[in-house]
Amino acid sequence: MEEKFLYDSFSSEQQNFLQEVLALGIRFMSGEARDHKVLNYLTNEECIELVSSELPRKGKSLTDLFSHLQMISKYSIAQNDPKYLAFPDTGNSVASIAADILVSFLNQNLIAVDRSAPIASFIETQLILWLRQLVGYPTCELKDLPNLSNVGGMWTSGGNMSNHIAILAALHHKFPGLKKKGLSSLAKRPAIVLAKGVEHFSFKGAAEVLGLGSDGLLWVESNSDYTTNPDAVRFELDHLPEDVEPFMVVAVAGNCRTTSIDSISSLRKICDEYGLWLHVDACHGGSLLFSDTLRSKVAGIEESDSVSLDPHKGMFVTYASSYVLFRQPEILTVFSRYPDKVRESGCFDLGLITPFYGSRGFASLKLWLLIQHFGLEGLKKAVEFREVTYRQVIEVLSKTNYFLFLHQPMFYRSAFVFYPQVVRKYVEENQLKGRKELKTLVKKYTQRFSEELYRRGNVIFDLYSLQDLGNKIGFGIADKYPVMGVSVGHPFLSEKNLKEVEAEIRQVGMVFEEQMLKEIMMLTNGDYSAENESATKISGPAGW
Amino acid sequence: MEEKFLYDSFSSEQQNFLQEVLALGIRFMSGEARDHKVLNYLTNEECIELVSSELPRKGKSLTDLFSHLQMISKYSIAQNDPKYLAFPDTGNSVASIAADILVSFLNQNLIAVDRSAPIASFIETQLILWLRQLVGYPTCELKDLPNLSNVGGMWTSGGNMSNHIAILAALHHKFPGLKKKGLSSLAKRPAIVLAKGVEHFSFKGAAEVLGLGSDGLLWVESNSDYTTNPDAVRFELDHLPEDVEPFMVVAVAGNCRTTSIDSISSLRKICDEYGLWLHVDACHGGSLLFSDTLRSKVAGIEESDSVSLDPHKGMFVTYASSYVLFRQPEILTVFSRYPDKVRESGCFDLGLITPFYGSRGFASLKLWLLIQHFGLEGLKKAVEFREVTYRQVIEVLSKTNYFLFLHQPMFYRSAFVFYPQVVRKYVEENQLKGRKELKTLVKKYTQRFSEELYRRGNVIFDLYSLQDLGNKIGFGIADKYPVMGVSVGHPFLSEKNLKEVEAEIRQVGMVFEEQMLKEIMMLTNGDYSAENESATKISGPAGW
Repeated sequence: MEEKFLYDSFSSEQQNFLQEVLALGIRFMSGEARDHKVLNYLTNEECIELVSSELPRKGKSLTDLFSHLQMISKYSIAQNDPKYLAFPDTGNSVASIAADILVSFLNQNLIAVDRSAPIASFIETQLILWLRQLVGYPTCELKDLPNLSNVGGMWTSGGNMSNHIAILAALHHKFPGLKKKGLSSLAKRPAIVLAKGVEHFSFKGAAEVLGLGSDGLLWVESNSDYTTNPDAVRFELDHLPEDVEPFMVVAVAGNCRTTSIDSISSLRKICDEYGLWLHVDACHGGSLLFSDTLRSKVAGIEESDSVSLDPHKGMFVTYASSYVLFRQPEILTVFSRYPDKVRESGCFDLGLITPFYGSRGFASLKLWLLIQHFGLEGLKKAVEFREVTYRQVIEVLSKTNYFLFLHQPMFYRSAFVFYPQVVRKYVEENQLKGRKELKTLVKKYTQRFSEELYRRGNVIFDLYSLQDLGNKIGFGIADKYPVMGVSVGHPFLSEKNLKEVEAEIRQVGMVFEEQMLKEIMMLTNGDYSAENESATKISGPAGW
Repeated sequence: MEEKFLYDSFSSEQQNFLQEVLALGIRFMSGEARDHKVLNYLTNEECIELVSSELPRKGKSLTDLFSHLQMISKYSIAQNDPKYLAFPDTGNSVASIAADILVSFLNQNLIAVDRSAPIASFIETQLILWLRQLVGYPTCELKDLPNLSNVGGMWTSGGNMSNHIAILAALHHKFPGLKKKGLSSLAKRPAIVLAKGVEHFSFKGAAEVLGLGSDGLLWVESNSDYTTNPDAVRFELDHLPEDVEPFMVVAVAGNCRTTSIDSISSLRKICDEYGLWLHVDACHGGSLLFSDTLRSKVAGIEESDSVSLDPHKGMFVTYASSYVLFRQPEILTVFSRYPDKVRESGCFDLGLITPFYGSRGFASLKLWLLIQHFGLEGLKKAVEFREVTYRQVIEVLSKTNYFLFLHQPMFYRSAFVFYPQVVRKYVEENQLKGRKELKTLVKKYTQRFSEELYRRGNVIFDLYSLQDLGNKIGFGIADKYPVMGVSVGHPFLSEKNLKEVEAEIRQVGMVFEEQMLKEIMMLTNGDYSAENESATKISGPAGW
């Protein structure tokens, strides 16, 4: 029994086991533990077959545990692999992994300083002050920080949660009686204004669980470049239903489907006019803050009332690493159960200003250590290198001539369909444009191509639904298409990586291009009846 | 720049660094990295001095990073140390630490199966089915699970969150229109019934942020043994304000201050009569499920509608490891944004039934691997050993004659004040009972003793506020006292550990006993004016 715990002393068997697990982790990262594939694809049924088991009566040996861990490593997907291009959550910085390892042993509890997290509370607080500085919010040095009411930000478990907490802060700021009396005490229904088609799913989720109801979301139109249309926001605010009182406008700094960025300053202006809270969802765009050049893309972010940052996206940090910050630091004190204590000099128990979290670990060490490792100069370089790499990857995709992009390249993600140039040419020459079977074919082959690639497991794109807001495909903007997404989370892909990506795409694309062309030809011959569009079987994270 | 990332290949420098960090983690656990103290105490000012720094411009070397990590390890508190007796979050199982290390490298995203967490989604699902079986909820084998609507549980970041989600599920179950129309659409104010003084702070927090408002909590009296009084619950339900509609009763299976356990079946009976949801907060008591003997203490838990479990408390798992389960598995589907999809055969994207969470890591591997390592037999043993160890520790404390316990021993935590037998005898003999200065002295010396112990860093108890519901101290039940808490999270403490605990307590206690007695004597001489009670400067996690 004792051998299953780590106490005052370690046995060499325990030490060896932990070292073996570390080595397995390294082999997972390098590819060795997964046959150098991004994914060893299994069907759900095959996964279940491997995993399904009764609650074990007898314990297992470390050797048995290790076999389990090997199996799990073999069939896990490698987001850190340069040819994983579905999502930006690479989590592959040395500092983040190292911190994560130590965090597990430290097991500090960030609810409080004393007895729980004495030094860690200050590391996390320092990190939040740094992040405030990066955003451009008022901040101070840690040694000048009087108490909790001046911290003005918190770690969260993800961007979803960061957005929830920003909504709550704005809501309680506007309606101070809420904490005691609840939402039913309000004369009008509080509402959030946001653009349809560019928003993250968390806003609808938040409205539903925080008691606003999805009716508490006022949807406005997006622009053809997948950004919020400020005129539409203004129009909505000028034509509100009688019983509704808006309290927040959402600006998206890098939407999760195309990484398009709203004009934050236009939305700020509107919020000022109408007395509303401006929240910036910068879960994707936050990384641009590290580059003085790219930062201009999110200009005005420092004028927002709150911002969500998500370093486990696009900043090479493993899960969970997300932060929500508030321009007015004292906003967070609304969540405190001891309102006086948070203003007491020397009180730094973070649990007093972090709604939803009680006992929690020291996940913030990861980003703190990453910033130490890179420094601002290194992070600037990493983010700017990635901009170059992203464009290289788009170039590789473009030159295969298989794809149609739904928008201009943004900063690390693009959405596209499988619609080869030869097919488009044939369509043009044979006046097939606008035929509804064509739309069905684009949908079908996009899905097929992406799924085939996924099952092969060498190069992986995302697959999700997207409206063709720019009408690039040519059937108007109303319809949703299954689209592929390419996300470049890595600062650099080697020449070899890029060649392998291209070769894989060509190999799969060639086959589908031929099939699609054949189907199109049948259209001209009139002997084609479009198949029913099949539901997407395999979908990825950004579809959310 | 490349050297800061882990790609297809690892440099030996990177490997060495990670191995060194692992070794540091091991030295932290064994005590070597922290001078074999539970805590190297620093004041807040000293912590800030060590941590405060500007956003670094230049990056640092791995050697520099390692120095930072050494400093952090040295001044972190060791919850895994056998002489840390403030909280049960030991996090020191080999399996949990090993899983945590691998999880960091794997960086799976449990939002979805495809492209995000192919094998991991099934491990987590299997684990939840196991937990359902342990609680006694209806369950099935993983291979027979048709789809998401039958999972009936989810990982969360902590017990706080588990309680939030249980409240939401109950609320949306009672008022199905909420998701769309929000709380203001309800005719009456929804409310939760719970007992004062035994509840976790998360319920008030949840009421405040989920839109009920703290007015949505109907507080009833607790019993003198720190359990919910079922008669008081019934009385409350029979005398409701006109505009209130209760939807949930909270049963506490191991409250955070004394680990007292409510009579779940009495509360179930009431809930059945009044048509209410019964939630069991078993964040502390959940570990008893693993022992067929101890399980009787939480009898009836299988009849609850929801239950919160918190393996990062009392089950040797590192943060974050918490779960909320629902007797009716389909309850969770209310949170889905694609209500049809969750009932589709073969859909296992956990992100569809997990409110508040989008992208998130594979934290569930820790508990899954722990269960594999121990097996049910091993966990039964561990939990039963701890019961013995807990009573040994209470015995050690009792025989010093320094303390007065506020309740009978429960299962791993007790609350007590510093009120030595010699002082009590003197009070008795000199008819000082009931003198208010005495109360002040008990408060003062409890606080002083605990703080002194904490600063010394060899043995650590918790310090928090508690009503003396059993009137053990003798000044009635209304007042709150600063009390110490002893939590035994470890299955076993060595003979040597127990001796060291005793020696440390005696050394500190002897001094305070003498001082306290001296002050009491001044009382009889009439030349004593009680000092103002000073606010607690150092408080611990359970005070929350």
